[in-house]
Amino acid sequence: MVSPAPFDALPATLAWQQEGLYLLDQTRLPQAIVVERVSGVEDVWRWIHELRVRGAPAIGVAAAYGLCVAMQPLRHFSTQDFQSQLVQQASFLDSARPTAVNLSWSLKRMLAAAQRSATQDPEAVYEVLVAQAMKIHAEDQALCAGIGAHGVSLITPGCGVLTHCNAGALATTGIGTATAPIYMAHQQGIPFRVFADETRPLLQGSRLTAFELQRAGVDVTLITDSMAASIMSQGLVNLVIVGTDRVAANGDFANKIGTLSVAIAARYFGIPFYVACPSSTLDLLTANGSDIVIEERQDHEVTHLAGQPTAPADIKVRNPAFDVTPHDLVTGFITERGIVEQPFDQNFTTLFSSGGGAL
Amino acid sequence: MVSPAPFDALPATLAWQQEGLYLLDQTRLPQAIVVERVSGVEDVWRWIHELRVRGAPAIGVAAAYGLCVAMQPLRHFSTQDFQSQLVQQASFLDSARPTAVNLSWSLKRMLAAAQRSATQDPEAVYEVLVAQAMKIHAEDQALCAGIGAHGVSLITPGCGVLTHCNAGALATTGIGTATAPIYMAHQQGIPFRVFADETRPLLQGSRLTAFELQRAGVDVTLITDSMAASIMSQGLVNLVIVGTDRVAANGDFANKIGTLSVAIAARYFGIPFYVACPSSTLDLLTANGSDIVIEERQDHEVTHLAGQPTAPADIKVRNPAFDVTPHDLVTGFITERGIVEQPFDQNFTTLFSSGGGAL
Repeated sequence: MVSPAPFDALPATLAWQQEGLYLLDQTRLPQAIVVERVSGVEDVWRWIHELRVRGAPAIGVAAAYGLCVAMQPLRHFSTQDFQSQLVQQASFLDSARPTAVNLSWSLKRMLAAAQRSATQDPEAVYEVLVAQAMKIHAEDQALCAGIGAHGVSLITPGCGVLTHCNAGALATTGIGTATAPIYMAHQQGIPFRVFADETRPLLQGSRLTAFELQRAGVDVTLITDSMAASIMSQGLVNLVIVGTDRVAANGDFANKIGTLSVAIAARYFGIPFYVACPSSTLDLLTANGSDIVIEERQDHEVTHLAGQPTAPADIKVRNPAFDVTPHDLVTGFITERGIVEQPFDQNFTTLFSSGGGAL
Repeated sequence: MVSPAPFDALPATLAWQQEGLYLLDQTRLPQAIVVERVSGVEDVWRWIHELRVRGAPAIGVAAAYGLCVAMQPLRHFSTQDFQSQLVQQASFLDSARPTAVNLSWSLKRMLAAAQRSATQDPEAVYEVLVAQAMKIHAEDQALCAGIGAHGVSLITPGCGVLTHCNAGALATTGIGTATAPIYMAHQQGIPFRVFADETRPLLQGSRLTAFELQRAGVDVTLITDSMAASIMSQGLVNLVIVGTDRVAANGDFANKIGTLSVAIAARYFGIPFYVACPSSTLDLLTANGSDIVIEERQDHEVTHLAGQPTAPADIKVRNPAFDVTPHDLVTGFITERGIVEQPFDQNFTTLFSSGGGAL
């Protein structure tokens, strides 16, 4: 195992142990904690495809180890056959979630590492692959820790923090993005409380965020999305931290549906609103939020709960998976390189010209 | 039956037919349309208590007819015994939902009507009771129609209307409060569309509002509460209409949890925000919203869906049933006496001094 979960009480999203990949089944949470050793590359593909492992950073690491799982039984192949299989297996894994950028990015890094040692025998290339997967894994954990280190100062004794969806430890292999400052403040013994929006329709807030914060001993209270403004109106929220899937060059950002509503309410009540993300999430090639394409998902996520219909048959439904929050509602972006404040367009450029290689 | 539902396609909330009370079981919606003739006063009590008939106006009418159901088999009693039983049965029905103001109000009217004819024989008093229940029923329908008549001008061709929870036909015996302008515009052939928030945790929006608007042929789209701001940001909403449980003298008002969030988002996007209610909902004895006590309901409504747990066991939960929206976010109140605009404190006083007896 590369490293334990942020707290012993919290099950690790994944682990590499005894030359095998162990994955936590997130579709079974919070009712059951099921960790399984995947039995082969088809198994890894299925786990990613079925969202049993989810969260862009976690998927990237799982795919890297997944490629190791794929190549392990092929170490007796000839060098040429091994390299040929490597490309095919990476391509197969890449097809598990076509829209997950981290998946392709991670597999490309694995192939590049293998390429640099392509003349070695398969046993040695396999060891290079495992080492590279461990590196990707360790980097993910370091990014989370960096976000936590920069964001922890925002959490003051007695404050209330509200978050939406799950940008938590379960979405990464470290202490999460939006949750990183929360876990660090908790470790430092700072007394504070967290409100977790349940996050309809898929309930990542109640199933995952409430679960992982509760397990870690954080004082967490679950609310429906519709209660956030009411809780804010009672003076119980002093800070909002959310994650993001993509940040445009001007600071507009996409995140789980409902984030915009939270940001507008935070502005109305004068509550600081922060977005936590690795700097690799900043997409300077996308000018602003209107250029971000929003995925529309299936109706049954809205019309059914736990397999039971809760709406009339054939009702028309909108189900955008994300919304775009305009940059003027954002107080700052918490990245592993520091907190970026307004004006975002200028300060993002400064951030990247100051070194580092996440882009 | 006093009067049919607003549209033949929509089942009536209740009906008085062949000296019997028929109730639509709202807990079975939208999966099944079950109308039952109640078998006695205990049955009426249970239907109200179990929210099978719900919505303050509908409960008031159901209780009035419920008292007729209670007294029907006692018509052979002596005048004195009949009057004594009448008070007892009304008191019993009043205990079904202790906080529902309309329940007490309706039963008091029934007792007052009986009191005026107390010297007559029980058969005649029973007829007075039935006539009074029909009057309360007809008044409720007239209030809804009045709200619709005043509000319909707000709905213009091509516009998008967003509503939250169910202040619909199912909450009344007429065409609803928030839905009254919607039904009237639809009857007039105006093309427009409605977005219905699902309204977590109890899903009155998806189970009831989406159901009744769909049945009536209104173009309705179901969304989760978290999508309202996103839908507004796309320019799809031109008008918000919600109901209310109580309006304070300054125009602050209480309504189903999530209403505040919708009001703040509407203000952010510059969308007119209206509250539809009979003028009897205006409570001039409550100075402002901070005087309105908010009911906190049970955790399991948030932690379970369709009987299945969706959150970790023992998670802390907040579950306020209502929130208070400050008056400055309200464009106007649509009442049966007209639309009241700012400044509300002055204009409410004018409304009541101009006659009528709803208070």
